[in-house]
Amino acid sequence: MNAKRLSGVLSPAITSFRRDLSTDTERYVRHAKWLLANGCSGLAVFGTNSEANSLSVAERMTLLEALVIDGVPAAQLMPGTGCCALPDSVTLTTHAVKLGCAGVLMLPPFYYKGVPDDGLFRSFSEVIERVGDSRLRVYLYHIPPVAQVPISIPLIERLLSRYPGTVAGIKDSSGDWSNTQALLDVFKGSTFDVFAGSESFLLANLRGGGVGCISATANVNPGAIHRLFEQWKTPQADDLQAAISTTRATIQQYPMIGALKAIVAHYGDDPAWVTVRPPLMELGADKSRSLVAELDQLGFTMPDLALCDRQ
Amino acid sequence: MNAKRLSGVLSPAITSFRRDLSTDTERYVRHAKWLLANGCSGLAVFGTNSEANSLSVAERMTLLEALVIDGVPAAQLMPGTGCCALPDSVTLTTHAVKLGCAGVLMLPPFYYKGVPDDGLFRSFSEVIERVGDSRLRVYLYHIPPVAQVPISIPLIERLLSRYPGTVAGIKDSSGDWSNTQALLDVFKGSTFDVFAGSESFLLANLRGGGVGCISATANVNPGAIHRLFEQWKTPQADDLQAAISTTRATIQQYPMIGALKAIVAHYGDDPAWVTVRPPLMELGADKSRSLVAELDQLGFTMPDLALCDRQ
Repeated sequence: MNAKRLSGVLSPAITSFRRDLSTDTERYVRHAKWLLANGCSGLAVFGTNSEANSLSVAERMTLLEALVIDGVPAAQLMPGTGCCALPDSVTLTTHAVKLGCAGVLMLPPFYYKGVPDDGLFRSFSEVIERVGDSRLRVYLYHIPPVAQVPISIPLIERLLSRYPGTVAGIKDSSGDWSNTQALLDVFKGSTFDVFAGSESFLLANLRGGGVGCISATANVNPGAIHRLFEQWKTPQADDLQAAISTTRATIQQYPMIGALKAIVAHYGDDPAWVTVRPPLMELGADKSRSLVAELDQLGFTMPDLALCDRQ
Repeated sequence: MNAKRLSGVLSPAITSFRRDLSTDTERYVRHAKWLLANGCSGLAVFGTNSEANSLSVAERMTLLEALVIDGVPAAQLMPGTGCCALPDSVTLTTHAVKLGCAGVLMLPPFYYKGVPDDGLFRSFSEVIERVGDSRLRVYLYHIPPVAQVPISIPLIERLLSRYPGTVAGIKDSSGDWSNTQALLDVFKGSTFDVFAGSESFLLANLRGGGVGCISATANVNPGAIHRLFEQWKTPQADDLQAAISTTRATIQQYPMIGALKAIVAHYGDDPAWVTVRPPLMELGADKSRSLVAELDQLGFTMPDLALCDRQ
């Protein structure tokens, strides 16, 4: 994979579906390009907010290829490749490495609960060994509220010790700052990069030695989040943090994925974006209106999105 | 699918792997045939204890075909086909219907937690509509301790009302008898079949109007469980229940899947059976020895298993 490490603001790009629930590649690529043109330094495609686990392995590979073929630099891509089934994780990770992606964001297998760290070590280890490519960079995806299978610090230490060039970092979506702080403390001065799982912790993460954030709401507010990343050492950093936290808190009152799609549909003047795959539900007209009203009150904008979507 | 409904003792047949973690079709088919010859009326292949979610879609289809090609009647098969991704569930369910399976056992999509019943209804509904085959019989798979996504009674009522010929029953693996009792009460006199998720509740389930059990430990103790199913109206029913509950409780002290495989490996004199896919771990020599010692003390046997495995 690419020699340069990713840092800054990454978006788990939302995935567009047609009314019949098939993937909509054209809209998908457009949104990805808009994100990179508007503050994202990279795309953590196929994350939780991308509805990745609602996609088949073949659909993920097709979408990833579409991005690269259409000119999105693979060096800015960190696709999610961790599945319940080892062969699927190996297939997706191998595919990402061959395309030249900067790294992969790897969920633990998430069906069985309460599995021992030994079993999780074996899972990540089998994927790394089977992919067998020195270009591979694995970012671990810690999201216990959803996956219900945590990635502990002792597990990370063990993986780092066994695969020092390969295990590259973590996205901490625990929502628990004390866990992020512990990661920063333990891996200080190492090559292990800590991304906060939300821009609410971006400033704290950068001050603690972290490298950025990978955040759902970077799908709609990448510019303001990026501004904080650029200016985090300046006196206005706390104000910038407060502003993006307010925007996030507003969106977070609603079911996140439906809300993100409703926002892109509204500000991009492109109603087709609202579609989600089951088991998720669309946000619906009433909630969308109130969300947009709240965002308008904050002076929220998505520059050139409609322009981009009308291309 | 087959006109005759399944009832009695079904086993979520364990899946055999080679040392390199590839699926071992020959052992798999042998064990399936042993189960049907020793008390199981059907096989709920690709359940939780089959490590189904550790298999790719292609691997599941290959194993299912191998069973049918090798003479296991499709009318005795209820494969698990519920995945996180709608296209995968549709692919597996269509495949099972085309093979003539008696039904499918369908997990809800289990990545997102806290999803509304509307979203789960839409999930099951999309699969049923897309498969679009009147032979389809769906058994819902309620296993909140693992999937963390429950299937509520109001959701079942809604599905039954919309797809009365198709939604055929449930496996209740909640481990909560009050939930099974509620299912029996609500769906009494309907065509909705209730399977207990463990033989510990088999007698209570049959007395309450249920049709049998689908139980992990039916992989190793099908004969005794089947005996209770045959004799549940006789005076010895409570004694038969007590005996199989004791066997289950003994096994359940250990991690279930590793334990089942260790038992088959030991009593079938076939050490290759112990392999599990990560994130699970093998039971290990020490625990296997103590488990076998405890089972021997109970007079536990697996008739003709070694014979069968040496064929």
